[in-house]
Amino acid sequence: MLLGFRPSLRLLSPRLQLLQSRSVQSEHPATSAAVDSVLSALRSICGEDGVSFGAAVREQHGRDESIHRCCPPDVVVFPRCVEEVSELAKVCHQHNLPIIPFGTGTGLEGGVSAVKGGVCFSLRNMDQVLDLHPEDFDVTVEPGVTRKALNSHLRDTGLWFPVDPGADASLCGMAATSASGTNAVRYGTMRENVLNLEAVLADGTVLHTAGKGRRPRKTAAGYNLTNLLVGSEGTLGIITKATLRLYGIPEAMVSAVCSFPSVQAAVDSTVQILQAGVPIARIEFLDDVMMDACNRFSSLSYAVSPTLFLEFHGSERSLEEQVLTAEDITQSNGGSDFQWARDAGSRERLWKARHDAWYAALALRPGCKAYATDVCVPLSRLPQIIVETKQDLMENRLTGPIAGHVGDGNFHCLMVVEPSDPEELHRVHLFTERLARRALALDGTCTGEHGVGLGKRALLCEEVGPEAVKVMQRLKDSLDPKNLMNPGKIL
Amino acid sequence: MLLGFRPSLRLLSPRLQLLQSRSVQSEHPATSAAVDSVLSALRSICGEDGVSFGAAVREQHGRDESIHRCCPPDVVVFPRCVEEVSELAKVCHQHNLPIIPFGTGTGLEGGVSAVKGGVCFSLRNMDQVLDLHPEDFDVTVEPGVTRKALNSHLRDTGLWFPVDPGADASLCGMAATSASGTNAVRYGTMRENVLNLEAVLADGTVLHTAGKGRRPRKTAAGYNLTNLLVGSEGTLGIITKATLRLYGIPEAMVSAVCSFPSVQAAVDSTVQILQAGVPIARIEFLDDVMMDACNRFSSLSYAVSPTLFLEFHGSERSLEEQVLTAEDITQSNGGSDFQWARDAGSRERLWKARHDAWYAALALRPGCKAYATDVCVPLSRLPQIIVETKQDLMENRLTGPIAGHVGDGNFHCLMVVEPSDPEELHRVHLFTERLARRALALDGTCTGEHGVGLGKRALLCEEVGPEAVKVMQRLKDSLDPKNLMNPGKIL
Repeated sequence: MLLGFRPSLRLLSPRLQLLQSRSVQSEHPATSAAVDSVLSALRSICGEDGVSFGAAVREQHGRDESIHRCCPPDVVVFPRCVEEVSELAKVCHQHNLPIIPFGTGTGLEGGVSAVKGGVCFSLRNMDQVLDLHPEDFDVTVEPGVTRKALNSHLRDTGLWFPVDPGADASLCGMAATSASGTNAVRYGTMRENVLNLEAVLADGTVLHTAGKGRRPRKTAAGYNLTNLLVGSEGTLGIITKATLRLYGIPEAMVSAVCSFPSVQAAVDSTVQILQAGVPIARIEFLDDVMMDACNRFSSLSYAVSPTLFLEFHGSERSLEEQVLTAEDITQSNGGSDFQWARDAGSRERLWKARHDAWYAALALRPGCKAYATDVCVPLSRLPQIIVETKQDLMENRLTGPIAGHVGDGNFHCLMVVEPSDPEELHRVHLFTERLARRALALDGTCTGEHGVGLGKRALLCEEVGPEAVKVMQRLKDSLDPKNLMNPGKIL
Repeated sequence: MLLGFRPSLRLLSPRLQLLQSRSVQSEHPATSAAVDSVLSALRSICGEDGVSFGAAVREQHGRDESIHRCCPPDVVVFPRCVEEVSELAKVCHQHNLPIIPFGTGTGLEGGVSAVKGGVCFSLRNMDQVLDLHPEDFDVTVEPGVTRKALNSHLRDTGLWFPVDPGADASLCGMAATSASGTNAVRYGTMRENVLNLEAVLADGTVLHTAGKGRRPRKTAAGYNLTNLLVGSEGTLGIITKATLRLYGIPEAMVSAVCSFPSVQAAVDSTVQILQAGVPIARIEFLDDVMMDACNRFSSLSYAVSPTLFLEFHGSERSLEEQVLTAEDITQSNGGSDFQWARDAGSRERLWKARHDAWYAALALRPGCKAYATDVCVPLSRLPQIIVETKQDLMENRLTGPIAGHVGDGNFHCLMVVEPSDPEELHRVHLFTERLARRALALDGTCTGEHGVGLGKRALLCEEVGPEAVKVMQRLKDSLDPKNLMNPGKIL
């Protein structure tokens, strides 16, 4: 999820669900019948409590936080260890049942939709933090561990895991979708921060992408299977363990906010801050519409103009210099109202608009649903695409305040839509396609961090070309010839 | 190459070579005959000058800087553009001829050896820097561009490309072998710094791993083909273009040197410097044997003990703080003789031992050849593996001073060997295997940056396990079913 969190789904106990009728009719009679035939096999692997047919559980596992339609799986299993995942996968493989991995369901491109029915593997019961090595700056986690749970676990070590997509997503899910977020400009995305993965392939094979238990900070040993799995969105394997890089918690942090007369001035400041070598930790852009929404929602009085929210990490002394350099640069670009804050409370107040942006956007149209688009372009192309996109939104009577991880050229329109209005949904759909094509025309990508999922398969082909899609398909076929792993996603 | 450079091979003009007799007898009569049959096709694609059978040219292209035996290809071609590379590949594909890409020949694991004969693609004639976008911090280069040539080209932009393996290697070759080197602790390896690749597959298909001309700083669009090609050592495709991340040249640099009573003290200092969040740019370790060699070779008077060479990048003011922090930490670990220098001349003098290490090692045994091993382990395991390795060297009467990129847990023994002594070569071979297995036993890798090439195929299997090797083989088969791309390497 893009901005902040929403209360997590409170799942009913699988046992309770078992007692319920299968009130959600399966759309896939073939897989549904196959599931019925393997029920006892599934139960013998992960226990009575570990298999759920309940309508509510299946519905909860058939959608993420996007506006993609819910497609419930035929059954949800709750394995407790990699051996169970492997055994369950073997059963599915033998009976040609689709396998859909499920972490926290906080994805944004319909990645968990069971479009061909099958078995959803909920990994929430595998939630242990394993093998913490503070002196080596690495840790290994099971797939049920969320980023907040990990950082809470790390509290006394002086270390943290900085990749922050907003939602309290599971770390293995973040690996599967190549998540990033606000800190990527300084600490990189999941691609740069996963050292090793354990994954179960379609046939039940347990793969360790960099070798079992290995955790060197760099390696040149063979094909980079780790980064083939990162971003594969469950279509190549179920990630059952991730070894991650950790970082020392910075001695101090400073937050700052600055308003600009134009998008160009905000982007120019960003480029110059990066050129000056300021090791900026976060540099977030909010457009005038979003600032207005935030002012209303949180009773703030920021200028209603393009705004940068900045965060600096470092030693007390280096921070002073970083902030001064950033202030100089923003002022030379016409920035005004540069405010900064050092202590936690003041920093929180200063960034309140940014933190509440999701809810502020929603409050623009009470009762509506929010849907976050996602494109990424080279930095210098940002002003053009943002100006054109704002024009497009106006012309098409759409509500879509803009927020972006501007240091990476990545931004989102927070589309606030009436989910029961098919005409508006259609306009939003056409708008997001135009937005993606605008990014492609400017050397960019149709998705910087949300992934392809269900929604961007056609755009992927336009982006990488038929040769690259053919190569991706060959790789998929070589690892999952029966197309059982999360079918219908990416390709 | 590990440390510094050696004078590059001065190749004879292909035209001159054409006039020479094929004095190197082919070891592969089948491919040799096939090459004869396609000669006119090759010449029609890249011209008379673009095809060479000359013995000297073939020998120069049959070896890198390792001690692996020279295996000359049957012919060397010199394409001038990607279209020629693709057409040449199609001819090879049709006639089942192996394809071996060749950049600068500075590899260290026999990656360019034509073990099954075939056609060497020398890419030196494709040497243009293309599409420099200073405001977006990216550039695209052809495969003949070396890292020094690129940095020279960038001189007036305020930007640089920091990955530095020592040798003046071609950047696409560095991508193919997943090179890194001294700066990786701050700026990452090739894996983190390649945004897009153009590559020609075995059948002549031109692939753009992230889509033609695309250069967003991050993407979540489909499988990460870029990082599948990075480190594939020419076994999946010929890299014909690389789009790279650039960085602002730091305002200032400081170099420092410090001696330690033990390897443990040097490594503890490294861990603490990283924990303190000092954005160290280089942190290099030399052991007592190497320091002694350097003192003798360069008439220096450093303490003959484990030593760290450090480099700090940043603003004038931040550097002062970084250096003070590092000095505090080294002293608390028993470090002594902490010296630092700011201006270019003094920095060069201070680091002279590190820069000359390769030649200093060679000078230990005049007339011998040097061979750099390469392993990488989690930081905390470095003291144990270095102590055990020094013991092993002594027990086996081998000369192997140690130098390492200690911030990444990566180190090398510079084996100085008598190349005409098969018994000594055998002892070195057994030693490097023991070293690699020692790294594996400590959760590490048999190669941090030199790659698998010819020499570490068996070790790769021990490292990643049979499941991962099988997955790698399936990927290879899916993209190169005839096994024509650099056969005999990695797998």
